[in-house]
Amino acid sequence: MSRRRKIYEGKAKILYEGPEPGTLIQYFKDDATAFNAEKRAVLDGKGVLNNRLSEYFMTRLAGIGIPTHFIKRLNMREQLVKQVEIIPLEVVVRNVAAGSIAKRFGITEGEALPRTLVEFYYKKDELGDPLVTEEHIAAFGWANPQEVEDMVGTALRVNDFLAGLFAGVGIRLVDFKIEFGRLYEGEMVRTVLADEISPDSCRLWDMETNEKLDKDRFRRDLGNVTEAYAEVATRLGIIKTSTDIAEVIDIRGERNGDK
Amino acid sequence: MSRRRKIYEGKAKILYEGPEPGTLIQYFKDDATAFNAEKRAVLDGKGVLNNRLSEYFMTRLAGIGIPTHFIKRLNMREQLVKQVEIIPLEVVVRNVAAGSIAKRFGITEGEALPRTLVEFYYKKDELGDPLVTEEHIAAFGWANPQEVEDMVGTALRVNDFLAGLFAGVGIRLVDFKIEFGRLYEGEMVRTVLADEISPDSCRLWDMETNEKLDKDRFRRDLGNVTEAYAEVATRLGIIKTSTDIAEVIDIRGERNGDK
Repeated sequence: MSRRRKIYEGKAKILYEGPEPGTLIQYFKDDATAFNAEKRAVLDGKGVLNNRLSEYFMTRLAGIGIPTHFIKRLNMREQLVKQVEIIPLEVVVRNVAAGSIAKRFGITEGEALPRTLVEFYYKKDELGDPLVTEEHIAAFGWANPQEVEDMVGTALRVNDFLAGLFAGVGIRLVDFKIEFGRLYEGEMVRTVLADEISPDSCRLWDMETNEKLDKDRFRRDLGNVTEAYAEVATRLGIIKTSTDIAEVIDIRGERNGDK
Repeated sequence: MSRRRKIYEGKAKILYEGPEPGTLIQYFKDDATAFNAEKRAVLDGKGVLNNRLSEYFMTRLAGIGIPTHFIKRLNMREQLVKQVEIIPLEVVVRNVAAGSIAKRFGITEGEALPRTLVEFYYKKDELGDPLVTEEHIAAFGWANPQEVEDMVGTALRVNDFLAGLFAGVGIRLVDFKIEFGRLYEGEMVRTVLADEISPDSCRLWDMETNEKLDKDRFRRDLGNVTEAYAEVATRLGIIKTSTDIAEVIDIRGERNGDK
């Protein structure tokens, strides 16, 4: 496997050339970064959990007719996906004020927003991923109006479905970030959900205690980051057998042994 | 005049109760502020010039059918305006990259934008007047969709007219900020241009030399701020007689004498 060609390395994932044309292998690292990569750490087992969680969400979303890049999970850290051209926008859906919007508009974190908001951020680390308007998107050609409409519509459907899924296991979906790609199929091009969905890209609060079960545990030094991700996976029934738990624990032991 | 009631004091203007119900007196101060009022100065004569310039632009814009709050200039520093409920949004129109958009998107200042952009900023000093999307405007109720449509349409007309007006006197209209208000007329409410239009709220570059003839001279410590504003007024024929020039100079002498 070491001879395969690396296509792209991001902060939390690596993309390799896939076994067939038009496919890629998405590898989940244990690396965590925050505040535009100013804060970094390795969280043993995070990649394994996010691979499982993202598989679960993408599969369920495909089940309600949302097109995604996901094909299948290959092993503990890798999944096979369709090669797409990533649209350079982060699509953020917010139900409750938290993080940057609380700061931007002086709203108390945890306050419900007057309505669900869909926001776009330009994916550009050097610029700190700035908020953009649809005017900016059109003027700079980051996406065309049809793509923007597709992304907003899909983002709202994803929000409804995930909000329900999490509510069923006592978790409030505060907000999340998704990305989209252009899937070229002959003469056709479709806008499909790409990248990942995991506690790295969502805010998830326990409905009873408001305990954070997401990457804010890392951003805010709350500790037990991987444990929180495992809690999400357990509640959703993704981790349920002793073998599943051993898988994650094994990886963590193995990595700890490396130090 | 000292007994009249002050309605509001802003950074560069004061609003007093007007002589009749539904009117206000808008007084232009010499105060200049930048960077969310972190930088401050008194620029002798600026208020007199902006009163004249804003009168000129508002009158010309009314001439092409754009509704404004302006009624008439009263004296050197004051104008009579209709009382409106200010919509808490700054509407910015950009033709050329400069200031915050150049920084936000890493564009070289002076580069033409792919197309004219209309942006909205939430008027809130404590938050640093953040950029907002139409989603935010609707969700937080700062303006309704009809008002947003009216503001965008009017902003683009203002841009076309002012770009032409300035081009005629060798000045490039790089960008400008305008504000709108709700004018209540019986059961009706109309969205009208309010506040002011002046070199305080525009970026104006000499077409030949690219010399800045606007508030960036103050922001960037380029000196000769009032002189640049007077240059704009002179080119537009607003200051043309020796009496006109004396008016401004008198004010400056009088203020300098105060020190």
